[in-house]
Amino acid sequence: MKNTIKFYSLILIFLFTLVSSKQETKTENNSAVKIEAQEKDPLPSWNDTNTKNNILAYVKDVTNSESNNFIPVKDRIATFDNDGNLWSEQPVYFQLFFVLDRIKEMASEHPEWKDQQPFKAVLEDDMETIKKSGMKGIGQLLMTTHAGNTTEEFNAIVKDWIAAAKHPTKNVGYDKLVYQPMLELLQYLRANDFKTYVVSGGGVDFMRAFVTEIYGIPEEQIIGSRIKTEFDYNNGNPVIRRLAELDFIDDKEGKPLNIQKIIGKKPVFSSGNSDGDLQMMQWTASNKYKSFMLYVHHTDSVREWAYDRESHIGKLDKGLDQANKEGWTVIDMKNDWKVIYPFELVNNQ
Amino acid sequence: MKNTIKFYSLILIFLFTLVSSKQETKTENNSAVKIEAQEKDPLPSWNDTNTKNNILAYVKDVTNSESNNFIPVKDRIATFDNDGNLWSEQPVYFQLFFVLDRIKEMASEHPEWKDQQPFKAVLEDDMETIKKSGMKGIGQLLMTTHAGNTTEEFNAIVKDWIAAAKHPTKNVGYDKLVYQPMLELLQYLRANDFKTYVVSGGGVDFMRAFVTEIYGIPEEQIIGSRIKTEFDYNNGNPVIRRLAELDFIDDKEGKPLNIQKIIGKKPVFSSGNSDGDLQMMQWTASNKYKSFMLYVHHTDSVREWAYDRESHIGKLDKGLDQANKEGWTVIDMKNDWKVIYPFELVNNQ
Repeated sequence: MKNTIKFYSLILIFLFTLVSSKQETKTENNSAVKIEAQEKDPLPSWNDTNTKNNILAYVKDVTNSESNNFIPVKDRIATFDNDGNLWSEQPVYFQLFFVLDRIKEMASEHPEWKDQQPFKAVLEDDMETIKKSGMKGIGQLLMTTHAGNTTEEFNAIVKDWIAAAKHPTKNVGYDKLVYQPMLELLQYLRANDFKTYVVSGGGVDFMRAFVTEIYGIPEEQIIGSRIKTEFDYNNGNPVIRRLAELDFIDDKEGKPLNIQKIIGKKPVFSSGNSDGDLQMMQWTASNKYKSFMLYVHHTDSVREWAYDRESHIGKLDKGLDQANKEGWTVIDMKNDWKVIYPFELVNNQ
Repeated sequence: MKNTIKFYSLILIFLFTLVSSKQETKTENNSAVKIEAQEKDPLPSWNDTNTKNNILAYVKDVTNSESNNFIPVKDRIATFDNDGNLWSEQPVYFQLFFVLDRIKEMASEHPEWKDQQPFKAVLEDDMETIKKSGMKGIGQLLMTTHAGNTTEEFNAIVKDWIAAAKHPTKNVGYDKLVYQPMLELLQYLRANDFKTYVVSGGGVDFMRAFVTEIYGIPEEQIIGSRIKTEFDYNNGNPVIRRLAELDFIDDKEGKPLNIQKIIGKKPVFSSGNSDGDLQMMQWTASNKYKSFMLYVHHTDSVREWAYDRESHIGKLDKGLDQANKEGWTVIDMKNDWKVIYPFELVNNQ
């Protein structure tokens, strides 16, 4: 029981995540477009600052077969955190909005929820009571919405949600709130034969339902937190059922552990935005090849959100200290990025 | 404790595996060679039987964009069991030979093992007593040899072992005992844009230490059983330490579960040789795309080994029944394969 509560509390802190923006990155097969883009500026939404120059210089160096720092293609593993790194994560992880929306949708089959916490609070949009329900309450909401179905059913539910849901203050779909500069970076790395992965505290099956299209990253390169599952032969129509029990939390030390379990190679390039990414950065920094550690620092209170050391979500404190100490590259979102979201491109260019 | 013993017993049954033969399959980048091979017979070590024809007909059908059975490249996931499917597994899983050899190597640092079972039995080549030590004894041997080191150290240990060890009756390195026809099949599938995976009950880190080269399958496409690990920042020289506790058994229902966890897509092509692969086959057979299920039946007592329903290793009983019932393709090793091992090619061609 104690363990269950600990799990729930870990869940709350990490398990929520997502992705966004339908227009970009289905370009893996589109070599002509890619080559043309390469000849132009591969990172057009980045200002010409040290951050951009560091990235370009690194990629040029390690892909140059004449360089002492050359990295063979098979070892060009690049891992990206998701929440706050590839898409926004405020005011709460977007996966939590999915939980709340889903509870409301399920409520018609659960009339008892009208009088039962923490469900009652969700139905009444009473965020204070939800918060007060603590890890146990939120864990209950999470398992109610994530377990008890098959992998196919859950996939369809998330797809329906992302197609319709809107961010409460930005008033666009959550999948529109991805970072245009990071989409360009992912594409630039792939054009240079890096294999790009998402390594997120968010739920892996939640992400897989829509991340592939947006980021151009296939399902098998999405790594995240997950719940336990069971196989049911189901009289010849086999299904995998999702159980109300955590299997793995892909955060903090869980990130390098899961990278080793699933990829089996140390990344040469890692990107994150919080202390939850620090161990992944440390692991990457220990690569025998020249490696690149990239932190996103949320400094833009106007176009996005500004937060770091004191934030309840995406806290960046120890990570920022180590980045400064080790000379890792830190993106100053306000000054390094011309635009934040893809939909701003229409106005800017 | 009961659980620990259950784990150990599961271990014994499944956790041992490997791979072999250094010459083949580093061909992923060698398009010219590949195309030329394609124009010739892509499966030269297979006799012209129904088995071979079924495979060729399937691949031609699902890769033909005019066919109703066309499968998009991103969904061409092919999963292969390892022991008894890509390399031999008799008289015991080759990973068990690693365990025994390793105990002998470690013995100089453990003088107490001379009088302590099950170590004493290993040092005295007393297989009967090893067997009698049961799941608990063998589990102890397994954890002694697989845990207590870092991922890098373990990788180096396995590499050293495979470079020197010899099979007790075949008198060649274990890595020479891979199946030439299966190497050709892997390559043929990759030439047709299938993504080939190993999905084995064997230890994933054990396999990764040498499988990549032999099968032409990168580390991130090797899936297997694994023990738990922990991250240690280690004063700026981070390591991942291997712990004496099972994390996941990649066998029976564990195979589809792990495929879903790690790949996130249902395979369209699966190949195995025992009842431990049956759930993977069933999962594959339920693909919305036309799928192919391939069982290796060990029928060649002269060139390899002959065993099936009664074998203590690689038991094929329920799987054979279902294959026959559903019309899955079953390789009759004796009649379908011109050669078994790559080293026979020199004599045959």
